[in-house]
Amino acid sequence: MPSKDKQIVDQIEKLINTQIITPLNSKQVPQFVIPERSKHNTIYDKVLRLGKETYIRSATDLGQVKSFAQLVQVAAAIHQALSDGVHPTLRDIFYSVRHTIENTNTEAFEGQGESNTCIEELETILNFTREEIGVMSKAKGLVMGDFVLTDAEKNKSLQISSSPVPVVISPLIDRIQIGAVKAKYVLIVEKDAVFQTLHDMNFWEKNQCIIMTGSGQPDRATRRLAHRFSEEHKLPVYVLTDSDPYGWDIFSKYKVGSVSLAYQVDKLVTPAAKFLGVSCSDLYTFKIPKTAVIKASDTDLKRAQDLKEDAWFKDDFWQKELDLFLKYKEKCEIEAFSKFGFRYLAEEYLPRKLKEVSS
Amino acid sequence: MPSKDKQIVDQIEKLINTQIITPLNSKQVPQFVIPERSKHNTIYDKVLRLGKETYIRSATDLGQVKSFAQLVQVAAAIHQALSDGVHPTLRDIFYSVRHTIENTNTEAFEGQGESNTCIEELETILNFTREEIGVMSKAKGLVMGDFVLTDAEKNKSLQISSSPVPVVISPLIDRIQIGAVKAKYVLIVEKDAVFQTLHDMNFWEKNQCIIMTGSGQPDRATRRLAHRFSEEHKLPVYVLTDSDPYGWDIFSKYKVGSVSLAYQVDKLVTPAAKFLGVSCSDLYTFKIPKTAVIKASDTDLKRAQDLKEDAWFKDDFWQKELDLFLKYKEKCEIEAFSKFGFRYLAEEYLPRKLKEVSS
Repeated sequence: MPSKDKQIVDQIEKLINTQIITPLNSKQVPQFVIPERSKHNTIYDKVLRLGKETYIRSATDLGQVKSFAQLVQVAAAIHQALSDGVHPTLRDIFYSVRHTIENTNTEAFEGQGESNTCIEELETILNFTREEIGVMSKAKGLVMGDFVLTDAEKNKSLQISSSPVPVVISPLIDRIQIGAVKAKYVLIVEKDAVFQTLHDMNFWEKNQCIIMTGSGQPDRATRRLAHRFSEEHKLPVYVLTDSDPYGWDIFSKYKVGSVSLAYQVDKLVTPAAKFLGVSCSDLYTFKIPKTAVIKASDTDLKRAQDLKEDAWFKDDFWQKELDLFLKYKEKCEIEAFSKFGFRYLAEEYLPRKLKEVSS
Repeated sequence: MPSKDKQIVDQIEKLINTQIITPLNSKQVPQFVIPERSKHNTIYDKVLRLGKETYIRSATDLGQVKSFAQLVQVAAAIHQALSDGVHPTLRDIFYSVRHTIENTNTEAFEGQGESNTCIEELETILNFTREEIGVMSKAKGLVMGDFVLTDAEKNKSLQISSSPVPVVISPLIDRIQIGAVKAKYVLIVEKDAVFQTLHDMNFWEKNQCIIMTGSGQPDRATRRLAHRFSEEHKLPVYVLTDSDPYGWDIFSKYKVGSVSLAYQVDKLVTPAAKFLGVSCSDLYTFKIPKTAVIKASDTDLKRAQDLKEDAWFKDDFWQKELDLFLKYKEKCEIEAFSKFGFRYLAEEYLPRKLKEVSS
């Protein structure tokens, strides 16, 4: 069994022992104490993290016993999978545990939401991410640059820079070692198609950097990889998004995190990440032609108003940017720079902004 | 300039010469004759391909001159990009050509749909796919197996089997050479997460095959790669989908094509592809427990009725399967096999079905 799987299996056994078997032996009530994952229990302190509130799932409380049993079943399914050398998906786990409770018409799990919740509970109790636990999901992010990815357990190793195509950011990113990093910084690009263009232009090679994309809202594996480049390899991380509240919010997901993932902030967030652009003032600094500018919708304006109230957008830079956006009501996409020629983004805009941000 | 780019640049120049400059010199009307891409002009003959209908975009017809000019502008933008060594995205091209027509309030392009249409027209006129022309897009598909991908122009080469993570199916798949294929067949999996699980289990290595996914509806690059494995490397191609009309339709996209891509059928479709499962009868043959079966919705039933009428579902196998579906009104997902244990799909279902289909 891979060492990481063994570690999780041991932790699950320990959990069942301390929370169920030992209490039963001493005639106490088996129960789980679970950190509360809610907006109410989320605190902003440079990043979004959980507060100290917890809730209880007890085996003898009629209102909690079903949730208690669900958690045990999901833990058992994961234990079985890892013992068997398999990493199931969220959906696999749901199918594996769903059943009609004997002699009733009641489903043990109403839907996948309920088994997913159990996995989140396990994550917070064990303090491992889903990826560390070994649960698979759809992959979304892509990466390219001069470094080596190694899966020591599988005896596979890849010099990424030798690949003619980008590689996917695997949901099992925590089973993979990153080494021989020859890059001065990481550039995260909101959009997959822009990432593909930068890759095609060898931007990463010419600028000795790593390029990544989360294809819009980043999944957990993409956030985790950005975190690892920042923490393990001390690389500066820059984020390039569209010039609109949706893009700026994506930047904050990398830097600050989100309420729904506050319980994994220390593994998924990159507090050192810096916003590169496209800022609202870039529209005017770079004199983007009006034909490449889009009128902000009411939803955009509402979103910008909301961002203005978020604690992590309260600094002078963002307040000024959001005011500018609310005043001129204009947004633009990264691709708008193509109006100045297809090389402008890679050869004019990015170098200039990188110089500004890193100085 | 890469040889493929040079070829396209030459073709665009030739087109402008023969359709615009030569006619002008002999006082004839510049015009383009474009194969018609419509349901009406789509013929089913083992695959879905265009008929012989064409339409004209003339420089002197008031109703056509705007479309004529749009096509010229998009061709010029692509010509400029390739000459400059760049592969723009569909969106880049739109931004590059959009402008307000001088001394009017009229936009040269109302939206990206119009520049996209011009690219489709160029594809059909030149008989090159968008990917061959060098237009980038978002990547969606993933692949893993024992073969080598080489980009000779960029001097990059990768033994895919040495990679700990799958690689993305690049939108520039036609600039990449496939070699040293050590595989007996290709398995296309509808769902990304199932693909990730099969990859994690080393299914491709244990079974000497290539695994691919299009993450649901396959993009063009994924269809193109399946076609190339089938045509260039003579590998059998099998498709694994959910057991529902949506999944079966995805299978047909690989095998037969679609109305919207009929104009590229000879490059994007794999007529030799075979359906592996999950079939409707598999639900009963493999005795999928009722808790893993989903009740078909009205939309599913309507979709199945429609499929029954499609010429490519008219054979005995599919008529029987669709009748079964319409009778029992039940569907299931690939992940349902997890009910029998997390290894069942890879170690029981797939080997049995592969044996059946290949015999």
